[in-house]
Amino acid sequence: MVQHQAARLDATFAALSDVTRRGVLEQLWRADASISDLAEKFDMTLTGMKKHVGVLEQAGLVTTEKVGRVRACKLGPRRLEEEAAWIARHHELWSARFDALDRIVEALKRQEKADGQRNK
Amino acid sequence: MVQHQAARLDATFAALSDVTRRGVLEQLWRADASISDLAEKFDMTLTGMKKHVGVLEQAGLVTTEKVGRVRACKLGPRRLEEEAAWIARHHELWSARFDALDRIVEALKRQEKADGQRNK
Repeated sequence: MVQHQAARLDATFAALSDVTRRGVLEQLWRADASISDLAEKFDMTLTGMKKHVGVLEQAGLVTTEKVGRVRACKLGPRRLEEEAAWIARHHELWSARFDALDRIVEALKRQEKADGQRNK
Repeated sequence: MVQHQAARLDATFAALSDVTRRGVLEQLWRADASISDLAEKFDMTLTGMKKHVGVLEQAGLVTTEKVGRVRACKLGPRRLEEEAAWIARHHELWSARFDALDRIVEALKRQEKADGQRNK
């Protein structure tokens, strides 16, 4: 279960680590598109675009369907809930660590001030 | 500006696409650690761990500092706000697309029912 989740996160984050692949998803947010539409839009060969769509499909972010001679692409089943949760946790614990650091610095400053007054 | 943001997202999502690198961040959520601590914890060579930490450092997710003979690692400056925003947008527009699809299916069903009653 945890292993499956790790493999899913590996695949999605890798799929999202390319500006063209994120662009394809942004395109599909607005409307479905064929692979040749996408290749043209991103000024890319059909083969290059097929590879990108393949990576997105493997990650569950896109589904494709052969309709006549055209391969139609649309958003896949993954809504990125696990990814959002991981990032939210990072954000939360990052803030907690840096807040703790701020508190230590504040305490050191107060201590220094108190020592300074005692030594006057 | 937009290009910089794209490069940042490429680097962070790539950094997050590995279960060990996510594990290193999860470890640093709790406490700072040296590279050798991390190598031991993840049962990995020092060289292997240095590479992973290097990828995280390039992405701004980790900062390292040489303290005597030890390289200390802690959370870097990036809180993943842009990444969270991108994923939230995907979530939102994904839902909008699928809700629209549901409405079309519902409308078709109602139409079919109405046609069925008319043809009785």
